[in-house]
Amino acid sequence: MPITLTDIRRAAERIQPLIHRTPVLTCETLNRKSGAKLFFKCENFQRAGAFKMRGAANAVLSLSESDRAKGVATHSSGNHGQALAKAAQSVGIPAYIVMPSTAPEVKKRAVAEYGAEIVFCEPTLQAREDTLAQVIARTESTFVHPYNNEQVITGQATAALELIEDSEGLDAIMAPVGGGGLLSGTALSAHYLLPQAEVIAGEPAGADDAYQSLQVGQIIPSEKPNTIADGLLTSLGDKTFPIIQEYVKEIITVSDEEIIAAMRLIWERMKIIIEPSCAVPLAALLKQADDFAGKRVGIILTGGNVDLTSLPFS
Amino acid sequence: MPITLTDIRRAAERIQPLIHRTPVLTCETLNRKSGAKLFFKCENFQRAGAFKMRGAANAVLSLSESDRAKGVATHSSGNHGQALAKAAQSVGIPAYIVMPSTAPEVKKRAVAEYGAEIVFCEPTLQAREDTLAQVIARTESTFVHPYNNEQVITGQATAALELIEDSEGLDAIMAPVGGGGLLSGTALSAHYLLPQAEVIAGEPAGADDAYQSLQVGQIIPSEKPNTIADGLLTSLGDKTFPIIQEYVKEIITVSDEEIIAAMRLIWERMKIIIEPSCAVPLAALLKQADDFAGKRVGIILTGGNVDLTSLPFS
Repeated sequence: MPITLTDIRRAAERIQPLIHRTPVLTCETLNRKSGAKLFFKCENFQRAGAFKMRGAANAVLSLSESDRAKGVATHSSGNHGQALAKAAQSVGIPAYIVMPSTAPEVKKRAVAEYGAEIVFCEPTLQAREDTLAQVIARTESTFVHPYNNEQVITGQATAALELIEDSEGLDAIMAPVGGGGLLSGTALSAHYLLPQAEVIAGEPAGADDAYQSLQVGQIIPSEKPNTIADGLLTSLGDKTFPIIQEYVKEIITVSDEEIIAAMRLIWERMKIIIEPSCAVPLAALLKQADDFAGKRVGIILTGGNVDLTSLPFS
Repeated sequence: MPITLTDIRRAAERIQPLIHRTPVLTCETLNRKSGAKLFFKCENFQRAGAFKMRGAANAVLSLSESDRAKGVATHSSGNHGQALAKAAQSVGIPAYIVMPSTAPEVKKRAVAEYGAEIVFCEPTLQAREDTLAQVIARTESTFVHPYNNEQVITGQATAALELIEDSEGLDAIMAPVGGGGLLSGTALSAHYLLPQAEVIAGEPAGADDAYQSLQVGQIIPSEKPNTIADGLLTSLGDKTFPIIQEYVKEIITVSDEEIIAAMRLIWERMKIIIEPSCAVPLAALLKQADDFAGKRVGIILTGGNVDLTSLPFS
């Protein structure tokens, strides 16, 4: 059953107590440098530091009463794990987060701070899936996939909903693409609310499975992705791909150098902290600046969780 | 002639085309950590990256028609130099900025980007003053002191004016103190608009001339200041000290470790970029948290100009 505008609006109401309505910022210097008029939806200021809070909150709040008591589970060493932990904590239910034992201390600490139970596994896909299956068997908790989940996609769609409400007459909306949860949600909100706007994604060249998938018309999984944009390593899912195929006009790939340069521009000129994955759409826009000249472009800034002790600036 | 509320309100109107009305942000995590309710006036988002734009704009726009044509001059390798350059550029008049030849490239570039003429000097106080005197003799430009100047103080006072307008019923207002331009302006606005609020400053222990001066009741110049808060190395002036003496309740000194810890909290939790000097009031509040428990405290975040390639986080 396709996700409707009503679903998205209901999700926006449902999650409202658990999320911030983040601001839309502009920056004269970046307008001048890009030749476009940019509207940045600042999900780096979102609770738990990323847009992932929207999907996680919607998934948690959509559970039945009996499922809710048993809690939620996922595998993630990134923003989804933190977001699900925080969403579960906010409503007082258990969260079980499967993480590789090799995950950075800062990420383990963040999840633990939100009161989740961390279950460590070996750093392989197989171990991760096996461990998650064991956790779910033991706890009867509900698996909330980081992106291939309709409640999650619907929750992520609320970022573009707010962006469209808070900026006037966008010609294009941009988001990064990893597993496609945010991009598919963004594409749906744009399709329903601003059908004349083009939805364009940025993707790291070192993890360009979505670009490849659109080219050949079927999901091409990411193989050995290698990019600084560590939130975008995952491959599209069977729930996100069809939406992206139908509603996304173009995926622009960018190098890590272009990502770091765009990230630095935002840090230096906007004085806000974003993570590398978050800089990908601006990098894509600057790479193909001619395509956006004079246009009003909304860009979803996805998150601000970085390790301040290892930054890519030199 | 003392600076009046009318002066401050006129300055606010005058500079309005040249500055941003910066947002007042809150942060649940920092409220929880501090035990107070904090309202951050984000001058790190100000034009040219710091509150200094307010004083510089007010000084530039207060010049007579004939003085305006000859331009403005100052010595500064920091935010005041950038701000004066940008203010002058905005109204199309020359700016002459005296900087030590040893200043960081990034600061030279910023001033040059705003179209100012940089005049280099040896890195001594004597050379700086001599060079500035030569520049003024040559150009007949008007010297705009970084803080010991009534137009500058009045301009800086507009930050607290906006903070008071945009937050309700503050019990205290905090700012850092270097030369005292911002602190004296803040104290004046609070005195006129919110007389029941306490004005409290944070100062680096390694540059505690304002603290010393208040203790003994006369200006004690900074000798060999040594702190990471490089915007706060200067000593009070004869225009700022009397205002501070009259209207500032307390100056709290903090170590560089405390400054870096507070800076890191703001970066990590608020996802915004501030410079070390800017973290000093929060460091002071956290150091004496009991004094602020349960209070509504406005904090002026002064600036966001940092060199991303040499950050103090480890």
